[in-house]
Amino acid sequence: MAKELKELTPRSVSYSQWYQDLVIKADLAENSAVRGCMVIKPYGYAIWEKMQRILDDKFKETGHSNAYFPLFIPKSFLSKEAEHVEGFAKECAVVTHYRLKTNHDGTGVVVDPEAKLEEELIVRPTSETIIWNTYRNWIQSYRDLPILVNQWANVVRWEMRTRLFLRTAEFLWQEGHTAHATKDEAESEARQMLEVYADFAEKYMAMPVVKGVKSASERFAGALDTYTIEGLMQDGKALQSGTSHFLGQNFAKAFDVKYIDKTGKSEYVWATSWGVSTRLMGALIMSHSDDNGLVLPPKLAPIQVVIVPIYKNDEQLKLIDEKISGIVAGLKSLGISVKYDNADNKKPGWKFAEYELKGVPVRLAMGGRDLENNTIEVMRRDKLEKETVSCEGIEAYVKNLLDDIQENIFKKAFDYRTANTVSVDSYDEFKQKIEDGGFILAHWDGTAETEELIKNETKATIRCIPLEGDKTPGVCMVTGKPSAQRVVFARAY
Amino acid sequence: MAKELKELTPRSVSYSQWYQDLVIKADLAENSAVRGCMVIKPYGYAIWEKMQRILDDKFKETGHSNAYFPLFIPKSFLSKEAEHVEGFAKECAVVTHYRLKTNHDGTGVVVDPEAKLEEELIVRPTSETIIWNTYRNWIQSYRDLPILVNQWANVVRWEMRTRLFLRTAEFLWQEGHTAHATKDEAESEARQMLEVYADFAEKYMAMPVVKGVKSASERFAGALDTYTIEGLMQDGKALQSGTSHFLGQNFAKAFDVKYIDKTGKSEYVWATSWGVSTRLMGALIMSHSDDNGLVLPPKLAPIQVVIVPIYKNDEQLKLIDEKISGIVAGLKSLGISVKYDNADNKKPGWKFAEYELKGVPVRLAMGGRDLENNTIEVMRRDKLEKETVSCEGIEAYVKNLLDDIQENIFKKAFDYRTANTVSVDSYDEFKQKIEDGGFILAHWDGTAETEELIKNETKATIRCIPLEGDKTPGVCMVTGKPSAQRVVFARAY
Ligand SMILES: [Zn+2]
Ligand SMILES: [Zn+2]
Repeated sequence: MAKELKELTPRSVSYSQWYQDLVIKADLAENSAVRGCMVIKPYGYAIWEKMQRILDDKFKETGHSNAYFPLFIPKSFLSKEAEHVEGFAKECAVVTHYRLKTNHDGTGVVVDPEAKLEEELIVRPTSETIIWNTYRNWIQSYRDLPILVNQWANVVRWEMRTRLFLRTAEFLWQEGHTAHATKDEAESEARQMLEVYADFAEKYMAMPVVKGVKSASERFAGALDTYTIEGLMQDGKALQSGTSHFLGQNFAKAFDVKYIDKTGKSEYVWATSWGVSTRLMGALIMSHSDDNGLVLPPKLAPIQVVIVPIYKNDEQLKLIDEKISGIVAGLKSLGISVKYDNADNKKPGWKFAEYELKGVPVRLAMGGRDLENNTIEVMRRDKLEKETVSCEGIEAYVKNLLDDIQENIFKKAFDYRTANTVSVDSYDEFKQKIEDGGFILAHWDGTAETEELIKNETKATIRCIPLEGDKTPGVCMVTGKPSAQRVVFARAY
Repeated sequence: MAKELKELTPRSVSYSQWYQDLVIKADLAENSAVRGCMVIKPYGYAIWEKMQRILDDKFKETGHSNAYFPLFIPKSFLSKEAEHVEGFAKECAVVTHYRLKTNHDGTGVVVDPEAKLEEELIVRPTSETIIWNTYRNWIQSYRDLPILVNQWANVVRWEMRTRLFLRTAEFLWQEGHTAHATKDEAESEARQMLEVYADFAEKYMAMPVVKGVKSASERFAGALDTYTIEGLMQDGKALQSGTSHFLGQNFAKAFDVKYIDKTGKSEYVWATSWGVSTRLMGALIMSHSDDNGLVLPPKLAPIQVVIVPIYKNDEQLKLIDEKISGIVAGLKSLGISVKYDNADNKKPGWKFAEYELKGVPVRLAMGGRDLENNTIEVMRRDKLEKETVSCEGIEAYVKNLLDDIQENIFKKAFDYRTANTVSVDSYDEFKQKIEDGGFILAHWDGTAETEELIKNETKATIRCIPLEGDKTPGVCMVTGKPSAQRVVFARAY
């Protein structure tokens, strides 16, 4: 691949084209032959695997186990919870037949009309219905509760306009589904998982998030409360990055799931569900990357350190190889993932551009003079700053540098968000400010009507009613009616 | 759950009922509301996760990366490789529509006839076609090769008669798909992955396997050679446990995937694919378990050691708790997974039966007298043998015991296989011996006709032409024609 092929459309020219270029050129994902479905390429998948491993560990630390439920949902299940079917029955892949047969003219295969299913199957858009139908048989008494289960799976929601990672017909996710004896316990679970997501976003993805609760019209279909973490992308748009739902007894009632409590009474079970998806890849990319390519937080980078030799001849390369092998071993012993790229068919300049594009946090380069001086050149991807340091203690130096990069990326994103969060008191000012992007904190009267009006006139939605921060009451910027606290508005992905 | 509910049908009464009972009662899996699709329960999934982690590490050690390809395959793709379509187009889930709508009478949802797909989508039964369609764009020159990719995914093959783990409509698996510049390299890859599977089966699952190559009629649809590992279950039936396919240039030709070699010539790419599935769970269960429940090899047991206190009162329990907490810490520091079950609502006898059923390799129990004597009771699940040992050095003792159990389980299965493998020279003897089950080594003339005749008359199939062992030529037991070596016959799952 020639170097020019790697050049990205600058963000200032077109943010959405920059994003598209970056996802493709950094080998993260691509569109497939199936409309709306993506191929996640090995480099992109390696980042997703890191996310999965960390989240999975957190789920297990908080007492959850993994399980697996069917891909298909009988059509009738979707109708059992009234709001749920409204939200999910619209865009879905429907399996109607279970066999193909050879075409009579020998040109391929056709659907066998005799193999029609009695009841159509829906490819799961989310699994509440099939899971609560299963839980009915798992739960008899309070001793069977809580059930704390998570599933890693693919889901399908038919989407007309898709964008790699951000909105695809098929995506990968995890969905937790828990069952509890009491309302309080279920609510605590939903909040706990919100905290797990927020912690993951901030500590690992280096993406600051606002934690809050959704307004009624933005809730998950079938939930009583939807908690959310909202990130702010570099173009000033919000991205919902994870949600945790308190489902009340809606699904227990829809699927008749009751338990006998300690006093012998029969009660409906309380539920939560919570999920994050490959959409997080989009959030990660858009939070930190620049016109040179990806910027990855070290904690999620598949390769944390790359080392490139710069040499005149084979003899010199051999000396550098020897020197570097000690450094590689030292870095690995500190748990750092490192790649030594001494491939002979690419020039150092090509490699530098490639690893910048792919967001490798630290690049080390060693040439003939470095070899003589026992030094090495260190480049940090986040700031694109170079310095030459001694090979003595380079391992500890790099380890500290990785920590520093992780912090710096977070701080940069945090400062960006701070600079792009404003409080606004009049609707006129709101309409002006919303054009600049960012989060707007404003008072709202709590009605769906006002929310709808604002959305129609400005394309801004209520991202959440924040759980933390200023709780001072005020008056709605549109209607002047009382408002309990400011809420977060933004245009969103 | 009362104790009698845990009792299994003895293997001697009905092996298949025993299997079904065990899968359900040990909380491994159950049938779902969707015909042929299973729910993998947390305990079963925990075993599968251990398998996944070990296999995934082995794939990465041998240079592979994970990626993800679409769930759906355009119908026309299946027809592109002539043999492949014959093998896979028959039983598959077909998506024909992408939307539901509310029924006009308000009773649920119906398929929206206006949302019919122009081309039907098949839920992947295996991914060669969609992947090779993708590889066409990834491969231009020899520098792009090899591609060494694996995917963990769900697949669907519509099955009329299903059995939990062994044959289900939806199952979980991994499928490796590699692309190579030369025939030799692709063949080596296919063989290498066979070795990876065999090593996993024997070292981790403690299941001895025969490595071999399939006869032409038992090959994967579209392969030039299918390598297989075959295990022998306790009822004398064979279970194909993993396959690795040398695909030649079939898929490259079907999807027009060429590369420019070093001399500038355009050549078709060589391919392999290889996979193991949740079927391995069935193999694991049937290799070792007994009428008391699961017997798990320590390397795959989610809980390796369970500790149960036996106490008269709270005061005594407190003393045991204290004593045990040191042992738990010691075991954990050796990397052993341990559960201390001091739950007050279950009796020790109930717990003993429960952990036997679930196949926990080692059970420790401590009562009042043990506390006085600084001893602990140790029970090994594989032999159901108990002894009382000193608490001094118990951690190392348990660690050695786990190793011993792992070896013993393998040895037992190995001895069983040895005792149930016979060489047979006449077809009459073959027909007699096949009724006893086991592997039969016999000469075969290499023709599909003879193979078919034997299958029709005896229900035995050629499991494989073994790669190792006796290679002496002979004459076919049926036709008397020349045979290059003995092959392995058995009745199979
Ligand atoms: Zn509802
Ligand atoms: Zn073919």
